[in-house]
Amino acid sequence: MGNWRGTSPVSNLQSPPPSPMNIYDQISKPTLLLDETITRRNIARMAAKARHSGVRFRPHFKTHQSAEIGEWFREEGVTAITVSSVDMALYFAQHGWDDILIAFPVNLRQLNEINQLAGQVGLHLLLESAEAAERLSAGLHHDVHVWLKIDVGYHRTGLDWQDRATVTAVAQTVHNLPRLQLAGLLTHAGYGYKEGGPAEAQAVYRQMVTRMNAVRDSLRAAGLETAVSIGDTPTSSLVDTFEGVDEIRPGNFVFYDVMQVEIGACQPEDIAVAVACPIVAKHPSRREIVVYGGAIHLSKERLVTRDGQVNYGRIALPSASGWQILPPESCVKTMSQEHGIIRADEALFTQAQIGDLLLILPVHSCLTANLLKRYLTQDGRWIEMADIH
Amino acid sequence: MGNWRGTSPVSNLQSPPPSPMNIYDQISKPTLLLDETITRRNIARMAAKARHSGVRFRPHFKTHQSAEIGEWFREEGVTAITVSSVDMALYFAQHGWDDILIAFPVNLRQLNEINQLAGQVGLHLLLESAEAAERLSAGLHHDVHVWLKIDVGYHRTGLDWQDRATVTAVAQTVHNLPRLQLAGLLTHAGYGYKEGGPAEAQAVYRQMVTRMNAVRDSLRAAGLETAVSIGDTPTSSLVDTFEGVDEIRPGNFVFYDVMQVEIGACQPEDIAVAVACPIVAKHPSRREIVVYGGAIHLSKERLVTRDGQVNYGRIALPSASGWQILPPESCVKTMSQEHGIIRADEALFTQAQIGDLLLILPVHSCLTANLLKRYLTQDGRWIEMADIH
Repeated sequence: MGNWRGTSPVSNLQSPPPSPMNIYDQISKPTLLLDETITRRNIARMAAKARHSGVRFRPHFKTHQSAEIGEWFREEGVTAITVSSVDMALYFAQHGWDDILIAFPVNLRQLNEINQLAGQVGLHLLLESAEAAERLSAGLHHDVHVWLKIDVGYHRTGLDWQDRATVTAVAQTVHNLPRLQLAGLLTHAGYGYKEGGPAEAQAVYRQMVTRMNAVRDSLRAAGLETAVSIGDTPTSSLVDTFEGVDEIRPGNFVFYDVMQVEIGACQPEDIAVAVACPIVAKHPSRREIVVYGGAIHLSKERLVTRDGQVNYGRIALPSASGWQILPPESCVKTMSQEHGIIRADEALFTQAQIGDLLLILPVHSCLTANLLKRYLTQDGRWIEMADIH
Repeated sequence: MGNWRGTSPVSNLQSPPPSPMNIYDQISKPTLLLDETITRRNIARMAAKARHSGVRFRPHFKTHQSAEIGEWFREEGVTAITVSSVDMALYFAQHGWDDILIAFPVNLRQLNEINQLAGQVGLHLLLESAEAAERLSAGLHHDVHVWLKIDVGYHRTGLDWQDRATVTAVAQTVHNLPRLQLAGLLTHAGYGYKEGGPAEAQAVYRQMVTRMNAVRDSLRAAGLETAVSIGDTPTSSLVDTFEGVDEIRPGNFVFYDVMQVEIGACQPEDIAVAVACPIVAKHPSRREIVVYGGAIHLSKERLVTRDGQVNYGRIALPSASGWQILPPESCVKTMSQEHGIIRADEALFTQAQIGDLLLILPVHSCLTANLLKRYLTQDGRWIEMADIH
């Protein structure tokens, strides 16, 4: 069990004194751990791939929401970022970022804050209707860059890529309105999250790029030049080069998570965050462990595995250098507000003791980080993030 | 449409000037609305039922997590409360509560904070093993009241009610250890959440009380006197009197939510909170509305209705006196980090305009309140809650 027992009574007189680097002794409640080495490796790998492909790397910062982690991107040459809300844009603008895309259909009720941002940074906004374009233009005091949100099949939101007449009409409206600078076409192939493995991701990528370029071509025929921006972690992780696009905006890859492992976008060893949870009860009759760590710490994001099983996270054990991931037979079976119920394999159940820590690798790291609001690194340093509600 | 269009341009010259009480004009992003009248009515009704039954009302404060709303309970004669974490106990102790039960298996890694609380308030803790009892006793500097967590069929955690030998052994251990005062037996009939309607709730209640009293009787035979504490919103809402128990601890009833409506524990009109969300896009081809309001505002708690459909919340429209709940055909179909995708009936789709507000009644109000961290009342007042992560 190594050093993970924390404040448990010392039962082995020959055990070495706790290392000064051991963060586990100081953890008393659900705590989001961050492995800086893995995080920096994930960032460097994606930045290098973007460089080699000659595309702009505009990472989505909604996953980490942290000014300090943002600096790790800057060290890899990143100068432009993506966020998902006006509040997040304000936070990163305060922390020195001056080229910010809010990748969410413009919220006309936040025109005051949008004007504040537009006067301060290069601001990129998303539109998908002529009506919103007109109202945005009428309310702006500064120029903004406008991207049209294109739906290439995910059907969350955006203009249908097949409806060229409407896309062209909205683009023309944007082009003609004051304060709006037509910048490009943007999509999120969220449907990649339902695919599995490199071959399918490549197919999704090729289809997405083909569709986006078909839209670009029809705008070009109407005399409008646009860039193409794409961004989702599965396809960005699984393709070798980014052909046919100008910009990529993945975000989740900075930490990855159990869902990305299930999709095949990463290996378990690429997951950079885990939630340390105290064990509070054990139930031998059903081989379950109860931890302090529930929906308000991890979120209720479910993973439905390929064989139709539902779980809420994978289990790891603290180790001297970080954590050791256990086989998927051990997992979070259910969750309530503060309780996590862990279905344990025999080895885990035997060694886990009340008062010890178990680590949970989250199903969806973006939602978990958003709940826990700060990170503890392996060398015992706290990293703060934006406190946005 | 009344006054719910907020910052939209005024299209009807005969519309009255906005009322000074209209809170909707000031809302620019996802905001948790609280109807004080409904909340106080929910509190008063449960408090009266407890009084008439002669049981102690120890409401669970994990739902609202607010010192101010706690005062509304005090006005109904409440002096003892339930919380779900040590941090929440510290928050309410700071706000004048001196009889606090932490209804979660004791977390031995927070002994420092537990000692701090035990020196300050009447502290009630939950145990379910002799091992945890011994380690708790060894670490305490002050007396605490101990409740044994009994599992009457929910199988989340607790001592199996049928295993009298183990329950009695743990009770004896607690009774014999210093600093631990055996107070009673506690259960949460969470399985009530899967039942539907008053008749089934009554049956669940009767079964729970019978089982708890069987355990109490076997402890009495061993010379140990214990109180019985129960607590869940569905059964507490649906039974007429609380027979056979000493204490009730429901929590969610303060706000209720769509899940409680589905269970039959309340009517839609009893729901006291709603999230106001700006409309950012409309998709006529599939009659969907996109709002700014997603998993980081509402949580990803799903409602599986009796006909097997999944949704993430019900829709209401702002009205002068609060909100008007729409038929269940309109609902939140899917959700991502910031997006809510609403399946709208024809009437809603026609009247909803980009820039307007829609209200979402949450599936699970505890998780939604925990995410949004403060409330806006109908008279424009902000109510703060504990900021615990």
